[in-house]
This record gives sequence, structure tokens and C-alpha cells, in this order.
Amino acid sequence: MSAEFPASDNLPVAGTAYGLGIGPGEPDLITLKAYNILQKADVIAYPALEDGVSLARQIVDPHIPEGRIEIAIRIEMGKPADPIYDAAAIEIGKHLADGKTVAVLCEGDPFFYGSFMYLFGRLAEAGHPVKTVPGVSSMMACAAQLGAPLAAKNDVLQVIPGPLDADRLREQLAKTDAAAIIKLGRHFAKVRGVINELGLTDRARYIERATLETQKMVPLGELPADAKAPYFSMILIHRRGDAWR
Amino acid sequence: MSAEFPASDNLPVAGTAYGLGIGPGEPDLITLKAYNILQKADVIAYPALEDGVSLARQIVDPHIPEGRIEIAIRIEMGKPADPIYDAAAIEIGKHLADGKTVAVLCEGDPFFYGSFMYLFGRLAEAGHPVKTVPGVSSMMACAAQLGAPLAAKNDVLQVIPGPLDADRLREQLAKTDAAAIIKLGRHFAKVRGVINELGLTDRARYIERATLETQKMVPLGELPADAKAPYFSMILIHRRGDAWR
Repeated sequence: MSAEFPASDNLPVAGTAYGLGIGPGEPDLITLKAYNILQKADVIAYPALEDGVSLARQIVDPHIPEGRIEIAIRIEMGKPADPIYDAAAIEIGKHLADGKTVAVLCEGDPFFYGSFMYLFGRLAEAGHPVKTVPGVSSMMACAAQLGAPLAAKNDVLQVIPGPLDADRLREQLAKTDAAAIIKLGRHFAKVRGVINELGLTDRARYIERATLETQKMVPLGELPADAKAPYFSMILIHRRGDAWR
Repeated sequence: MSAEFPASDNLPVAGTAYGLGIGPGEPDLITLKAYNILQKADVIAYPALEDGVSLARQIVDPHIPEGRIEIAIRIEMGKPADPIYDAAAIEIGKHLADGKTVAVLCEGDPFFYGSFMYLFGRLAEAGHPVKTVPGVSSMMACAAQLGAPLAAKNDVLQVIPGPLDADRLREQLAKTDAAAIIKLGRHFAKVRGVINELGLTDRARYIERATLETQKMVPLGELPADAKAPYFSMILIHRRGDAWR
């Protein structure tokens, strides 16, 4: 099934790289602009695991036309990423120099903790035109799925990475009205401990793989003490319980 | 000009209200999902000024089919907003009870400092099905336009409203790697003063009306001392200068 919708005129521009925010997971949460650029890009690049599997590629799979040049940027765990981005920037740069347009797929939003910025810096410093198309970030998608507004009025909202040590987590959480704690993974137990200490567990909601079919969400306090969290998970906290109150 | 694109099957659902994130201003920065719902909604509601002018309505103007029932929720400056949302929720609720679908337009993302949450709470408490479709927030759009990534790695990113007093602003900014200071308007001079005191002016970028034709952006230090900022403006700060370094 398909529908008519407005095209983005005059995009993409030859010789330009676009960091495309493709949204949190549900294919329809891509913007019209990113969708349009994707239809016409000559080259499509995306981050992938060592085995070639790419969540970004999977998200937009229904939208990618056939016959495109594809570049999987394979990030190897435990190895330095800089040489990988160096090589990817050189490969992409060659296509740009040939007048091709390159779409770099970015889960969520490219500039919100996204690895695209490492390519962006390299390509821009090499003199290539690079544009960023903002996308729906996982933080906004998690809030929407949970029915839990992030922040309102004069609330301070903090985005706090789970890998920070417990002291820093405690310090940041103590000084905010609302928080999104990201990158939980193996830091989940430590993060829960701090939230508990601060008496915020009953204000905390947990969600993983927001908008994907495997999505799971639950009040944090209802998870078993030994629950595990994947990397793509988040805890949202609001001190008032509901932001609108 | 128009193109084929995937429809969102089985949406919208009769008797449901949708808070639609419509993005920061450029009409193409709406998601396929919000666009699809908008095409089929029976009723379209949006916040408006007293005189009826609505930025949200203007943003999606190219996308609204003819013949829809429209509800302008007129917010009057200096008057309490609660009775206005009460009345709007009752009006929308009547359409929902009739089995109609209602799209509520929300600039940016509905749950990121958006007024939709006040309707969301009222409609949900009255027992109506309410869904939120996340959107591209102004924060992500400002970063994209500026070419300035918001945060990377284990950065803490704070969203700080300009109306907070200088002491609170200082305290929050001192404890963060990166910040987005929103709702500047008449608080602009105070905010600039605090940023200056903390020695962060050369790390700060100013942008107003991101992605609209009237967009303006400039390093904060290059603005004249008496510069004014509209409500739809933002300062982005990163302590390292560029998040990817």
C-alpha cells in the first residue's frame, strides 16, 4: 500500500553527504525529507556490527530502492573506531568527489549521541559538503510510547549516560526535575541503585527497543532485582511523577 | 510535485486522539506516520494565538486536506490556560465519542515542553484513547542547522529553560558537558550574562526559528550586547567546543 506525498524539491544535491536521522525504529517514523533523500541517493552508508548486521539498515529496509551502492561501516568491539571512520570517510569522499550523493543512515537523530558526528567532522574537514537531517530521537519516542511527557514549563531535563560512575549519577540526578538515563546495558544495576537511594524509583519508567516489535516497557519498580537491560534501553524520570502536574 | 511513499496501515483508529509531532518548522520534517494520520483525521486541532494565528497550522499547511473540521485552541496571554484546555478537551472529547479521529498538531515533539501534554492528561483521564506520535524536536533541528552535535560518548546534556533565575542557571551550567538553553525571549540578556561569567561564550551558538525561512544563526559572541531573542530561539553549548572531540 502506498500514498501520494510531497517530494522535497532539489534534494539531494550532487556531491553532498547527508546524515539522515531515520528515527527510533518504526519505519514510518522517518521524516518526509529523509525519505525523499533516501529515494534518490546514489550511495547508502550505515553503521554495522562486525558480522554486517545493521539496525539502521533494517529500520529503513522497506524504504531503500534497489540497485544502490551500499557501504557497511563495520565497528569492531574492543578495537579503536578512529581508523574505521578514517577509512569510511575516504571511501565516502571518493563517491562525493565523483559527484554522487551519499546518504548516511543514523538511528534516531544524527547529532544526539550518534556516531555520524565522527564522519561529519572528517568529511567537513576534507572540504566535502555535509548536511544533517534531524530525526526523531529515541528519547522522544520512549516518552511517546510510555505516555510520559519528558519535561514541561521551567523543568530542567538532563540526559545522563549510564556508564558514568555512581557519584556522578547521584550528583546529576539530585539537581534535575527530569532525566533520561541512556546507554544502560551492563550499567543497569548501578543506575537502579542510585535511583533507589534518591527515592526516585516510583517516578521512574523503563523502556527498551521503543517502537520496535520487540518493545518492552514497565514501571522501573516492577522489574525483578536481577533484570538485565540491553544497550537500546532507557529510564525516564520525572520528579513530579507526571510533567504536566 | 509529489511522490509515492508507504502508507501507515490501519491508522488512524476511530475515536482516538493523536498528538502529532509535526517537527520544527520545515514542512518536510514531519514523519511519514504523522503525515499519514493527518491525511485521514476527521478533526484537526492546534494551539493558536488570540488572533487565531497558529505556527503549528502554518507548518503543516501544505499537508492539510480540504474540508476538515478545525479547532483552534486560542491561548490568551496573561490569562490562566487551564480553563482553555478544559474546554478544548471537552470539545475534542465530543468528536471522539462520535467515533471521529482527532489530530492535535504539536510543534516539534509533543512531549518535549509541548502544550499537548495538558490535553493528553485531560483526555486520558476522561477515558478517551490518546496516542502520541513523536516528532523532530527543535533541539535536534537547531543542532543540525548549526552543524553542532549536541552530545557524544558519556556527555551529560542538560535542557535548561531561560526563565530560571541566574543562580539556578549558573548551577546547572557548571555541572554539565553540554546544554541547550531554551525559551530565551526576554531572558536573553540574563542568560548571556551567566554564560559569560562561566567563560562559555566561545563555546555557545545562537539560533532562532530553526529550519524556517526566517532562520538566523550566529556564534553567541558575535551578537551585539543589546541583541534581542524571540521565544523560538535557543543557545547550544558544548564544553569541548565540538562534541566529537
